[in-house]
Amino acid sequence: MTSPQRPARTFGWDFGPLPPGPRNGITDVPGVRVGHATLASGDLRTGVTAILPHAGNLYRDKVPAAVHVINGFGKSAGLMQVSELGNLETPILLTNTFGVAACTQALIRDAIRRNPDIGRETATVNPVVGECNDGFLSDIQALAVTPDHALAALASASDVAASGSVGAGTGMSAFGYKGGVGTASRRLELGGRAYHIGVLVLANFGRPGDLLLPDGSKAPDPRGLEAPEQGSAIIVVATDLPLDHRQLTRAIRRTGVGLARLGSFWGHGSGDVAIGFTTATRIRHDETADTVLCAMLNEARMDLVFEAVAGATQEAVLDAMLSSAPMTGRNGHHRPSLAETLRLTARRA
Amino acid sequence: MTSPQRPARTFGWDFGPLPPGPRNGITDVPGVRVGHATLASGDLRTGVTAILPHAGNLYRDKVPAAVHVINGFGKSAGLMQVSELGNLETPILLTNTFGVAACTQALIRDAIRRNPDIGRETATVNPVVGECNDGFLSDIQALAVTPDHALAALASASDVAASGSVGAGTGMSAFGYKGGVGTASRRLELGGRAYHIGVLVLANFGRPGDLLLPDGSKAPDPRGLEAPEQGSAIIVVATDLPLDHRQLTRAIRRTGVGLARLGSFWGHGSGDVAIGFTTATRIRHDETADTVLCAMLNEARMDLVFEAVAGATQEAVLDAMLSSAPMTGRNGHHRPSLAETLRLTARRA
Amino acid sequence: MTSPQRPARTFGWDFGPLPPGPRNGITDVPGVRVGHATLASGDLRTGVTAILPHAGNLYRDKVPAAVHVINGFGKSAGLMQVSELGNLETPILLTNTFGVAACTQALIRDAIRRNPDIGRETATVNPVVGECNDGFLSDIQALAVTPDHALAALASASDVAASGSVGAGTGMSAFGYKGGVGTASRRLELGGRAYHIGVLVLANFGRPGDLLLPDGSKAPDPRGLEAPEQGSAIIVVATDLPLDHRQLTRAIRRTGVGLARLGSFWGHGSGDVAIGFTTATRIRHDETADTVLCAMLNEARMDLVFEAVAGATQEAVLDAMLSSAPMTGRNGHHRPSLAETLRLTARRA
Amino acid sequence: MTSPQRPARTFGWDFGPLPPGPRNGITDVPGVRVGHATLASGDLRTGVTAILPHAGNLYRDKVPAAVHVINGFGKSAGLMQVSELGNLETPILLTNTFGVAACTQALIRDAIRRNPDIGRETATVNPVVGECNDGFLSDIQALAVTPDHALAALASASDVAASGSVGAGTGMSAFGYKGGVGTASRRLELGGRAYHIGVLVLANFGRPGDLLLPDGSKAPDPRGLEAPEQGSAIIVVATDLPLDHRQLTRAIRRTGVGLARLGSFWGHGSGDVAIGFTTATRIRHDETADTVLCAMLNEARMDLVFEAVAGATQEAVLDAMLSSAPMTGRNGHHRPSLAETLRLTARRA
Repeated sequence: MTSPQRPARTFGWDFGPLPPGPRNGITDVPGVRVGHATLASGDLRTGVTAILPHAGNLYRDKVPAAVHVINGFGKSAGLMQVSELGNLETPILLTNTFGVAACTQALIRDAIRRNPDIGRETATVNPVVGECNDGFLSDIQALAVTPDHALAALASASDVAASGSVGAGTGMSAFGYKGGVGTASRRLELGGRAYHIGVLVLANFGRPGDLLLPDGSKAPDPRGLEAPEQGSAIIVVATDLPLDHRQLTRAIRRTGVGLARLGSFWGHGSGDVAIGFTTATRIRHDETADTVLCAMLNEARMDLVFEAVAGATQEAVLDAMLSSAPMTGRNGHHRPSLAETLRLTARRA
Repeated sequence: MTSPQRPARTFGWDFGPLPPGPRNGITDVPGVRVGHATLASGDLRTGVTAILPHAGNLYRDKVPAAVHVINGFGKSAGLMQVSELGNLETPILLTNTFGVAACTQALIRDAIRRNPDIGRETATVNPVVGECNDGFLSDIQALAVTPDHALAALASASDVAASGSVGAGTGMSAFGYKGGVGTASRRLELGGRAYHIGVLVLANFGRPGDLLLPDGSKAPDPRGLEAPEQGSAIIVVATDLPLDHRQLTRAIRRTGVGLARLGSFWGHGSGDVAIGFTTATRIRHDETADTVLCAMLNEARMDLVFEAVAGATQEAVLDAMLSSAPMTGRNGHHRPSLAETLRLTARRA
Repeated sequence: MTSPQRPARTFGWDFGPLPPGPRNGITDVPGVRVGHATLASGDLRTGVTAILPHAGNLYRDKVPAAVHVINGFGKSAGLMQVSELGNLETPILLTNTFGVAACTQALIRDAIRRNPDIGRETATVNPVVGECNDGFLSDIQALAVTPDHALAALASASDVAASGSVGAGTGMSAFGYKGGVGTASRRLELGGRAYHIGVLVLANFGRPGDLLLPDGSKAPDPRGLEAPEQGSAIIVVATDLPLDHRQLTRAIRRTGVGLARLGSFWGHGSGDVAIGFTTATRIRHDETADTVLCAMLNEARMDLVFEAVAGATQEAVLDAMLSSAPMTGRNGHHRPSLAETLRLTARRA
Repeated sequence: MTSPQRPARTFGWDFGPLPPGPRNGITDVPGVRVGHATLASGDLRTGVTAILPHAGNLYRDKVPAAVHVINGFGKSAGLMQVSELGNLETPILLTNTFGVAACTQALIRDAIRRNPDIGRETATVNPVVGECNDGFLSDIQALAVTPDHALAALASASDVAASGSVGAGTGMSAFGYKGGVGTASRRLELGGRAYHIGVLVLANFGRPGDLLLPDGSKAPDPRGLEAPEQGSAIIVVATDLPLDHRQLTRAIRRTGVGLARLGSFWGHGSGDVAIGFTTATRIRHDETADTVLCAMLNEARMDLVFEAVAGATQEAVLDAMLSSAPMTGRNGHHRPSLAETLRLTARRA
């Protein structure tokens, strides 16, 4: 396929020596798919985004996974068990803060539908849901997201990862601009084989006036007001590299570097959480062998992975912002578009 | 008031030098209340238990809180933010694994009702919900717990903490016996003043045949079968002692000692989680002062607290088991009563 | 070889269904060796104990390792890097609190001697040293342990693991009795193959009067005084089971269960630390492959491992105590022998 | 006093809205003093740097402290106990990787000299030592640092914090340039009172070619070679703000933001560790009260602290680099000076 050029690549910025994958998105990791359900009417600007590690039955064939909490002011679901057992057994859903319960229920129902033995002959299931607060643009008190929206996001999953004001990104804000969902990837060559690290960010963080662009300049302050950094960032990292749980944890910790490069200091009010998984192995729910073979990266190669995660996180946030048109939502609250602002500034100069 | 003698105190066991409080329960901590909603009909043996740190508006007047994960095979909600910010801003709800979403929604609605600025003029709210899997006795796939059950548990809260097969404890199992909700407390004298440490346990853990009684003997194996330790234990620790976040975390880590004394080795499949709070301080949501005064315990006194937490946890589990009658639930699955078994054994001897 | 019957096995106690290995010690794990250097003259009752995972060049062929802190009131060296990188590249040395620096220097010198490129053409080296405070019986202010003592302990390593008042255990106390170094093991059969889990404990913890024996009875209080639980326990866990870093961490967390079974509540003043390693894999310092194969245990088998770790830890502490004769040290300070006390009590009954 | 203008302030860079304190260094926090011992002869380019929180007996009057590990590839001493007990009872010493043992012994001896009851009538003492690997410029195998050097660094402590190739910074490298010791501070006004946050960095990290200057431009690559990011950064954060242990931990986590702003992605081989303390409270070793009063910051003010820590960390690293002349050390290994390079580049432009 030909690569759709994402907007962040049109500004001539230097994103470092590691090249992006063909889609420059999380779906460059083979098998990973993304879907969205968008609610944008009346006072609602919200939705659900689904990330699926593979097309099979994820409860039966789990993938190795890890979690890193950058700043824990957030309400995500399912993280504790991912840390303990090191696996992911449902797709990851992203939504608004008060949509977590609905998404949880959808994941439970979906898992039971595919695996009727859940909670009866076998264990229960651990739904993983990340969230940000879109209450500035959307009426979050409406509790508008339903399990059906979540199931619709799951059903729409494909290898095309749309960006901007879509799905869970619909009502998000970043650095005083319109935020949203964004993605990016990096391609690594190891042992004559290509691997990918893909990042998908739900970008809803950053204090107006703090945004640093990749050329080192500050983006214009969209409103000239000091305001607390709040909102959040949920960063999903996918890879087909073989990483064990400790390595995966080390890798996704570098998402914090990506946020810092953008000018964030991981504000007090920002629930910044990274969730990572690798598709290199499957963990079989019904494994009968006593021991299983796995693979891991030579630890001396980790710098490549760190650089990829940091860079793709930084770029994915810019993709979220640059893919979003301006938006007016609840109570006439407004967020300008970073892309429009940068083009206007460039024309003036 | 006169103290209701809890059943674990009728066996002549030695629970160590620290005396229990007047109720020998979590409500010995002044202001703490507990409520239950019970679902026990057809194939359902489940419910909700609510623990309220004080009678005021908890979102406006939060309490210092901490979390400790003994074994993270579980699906509790809200723990990450408690760890980051060190506070509790909703009551704690306990329920079955698939009831977490409904309880989360109830806590959000209840908080919004009392604080209409949530998610609009102020931040969102962090619902805290613990869970165990009651799927052996109850049809967990029915997703039977609703937000209304959760609100009913909250509304019924009082300083009488019922034990056994009530609320979230209705369908729980422990060591092959009927488990449930149990509670115990310890009274400490420091500086001429009395303090209490109270524990409430949702007891749903322990492999049949492993239960150790406080006299050092093994309880009879209720079924003579080896079975994996699964289920879970949620342990809520309340105190009016002034403890800072680090001290509170150290204190509740000793709940693991209480479980180990009972013969548990914190089984792989058991989601064992401790949540602790202190009522000694309030953290005002609308605090305007730049700095606030607080108090903490002289660190050299921590052994007293550790001993109290370990002992009250051990006793609370026994209270849960000994307060429960035998139960037959879903598919004719049956759990005998530990109290009946011990009485029978004693009569035979 | 025929198994030397360790004293804890002579009291008729039930140590559960998992059998010990042939030596009932950490050296049942093939390749693991233990050495001691003992200082017992004048006011000194101290020493060094060395645990070597294999006989080769450990810097060149590291073993996977993990750390768990039960209570961090301690001064061990090297733990941070073990947690980050998941490997052990020096033997583990145990000593008294103020001997850590000397042991660190010995490990550095020994590693440089075998690997002259350290700190020049390649990285530095991470010495791992655990410690307990033997100041009750020994003059710890003398800083008597030297690098030569540490090198002597390393040089004396064999597959015979002596117990009691030897090496680092020379001056240790436990529950008011003479403590020391102790060991135990468990044998597991998986897939028709035998594996071992071995534990070596430096036992210097426990409040007089708190000791629980495996039959559920309390050991006599050696002095009838309430005293703070202090001292520490360093617990080294070795295995030839293939466990990844997360699994190894989960496994060694259960050392806390073993301590709790003995009546400890992980006292405030006790630096209780577990260090675990597996000999199932080697991590080559000069690895050139980009990815490496490894193996891990089917997670559903972890309960076996947990039970083995908990039980072997409990038994290793009893081995340390029961292998020790009474000792009088600095300032006439005295610790009675648990074995003598129990025999005396039995004779009286 | 008049403020000595540190070199990083002479380039016209924007360091954000928070002003530095009068010394723009860690000694702006009242009572904090810094000393150095430098070894620079033959093949040695190494030394010791001491940071003293106050002038009294630190063992008797401890200060609240916390630790955060950014990347744990390092050999620092004493961190575990700081995390568990939340206090610092010795000065912090910084040195080379193989000097940790000598510094540990110096801190033990110094503490025993002032407190002869240590290890006899009272507990032992927890020496805190941070380290980086200066093996590129210095013969680290010489184990040249002795306890006397450490005692000399302690004895030389004053409120003048020298920067560059001094003390532990003597042989350090950063981003292919000469690194060293650097410092910076920020001044906060809260409730009409001034507070300071001071940072001292031992800067020995960063891959050549990665250094980002505060104006967003990349510094010239000093050697045009790709090389692994190795070395380390030890970041000491001091403040007179009242922060409890959880808040202090949150605060010093933002040192990672400062490193990321400089172009680091926290490389695999870099042992990046932050140690923080507050002088706002004293924790008395011989405290007799059961509970003690303390103060903490209104959590809603944490963003100010985060911004100060991130900014001062970034500036302190630049101070270390810009205060250092070029250096040639062991084997003719050479590091150019960033200050010279930037002046040369500016003249050429």
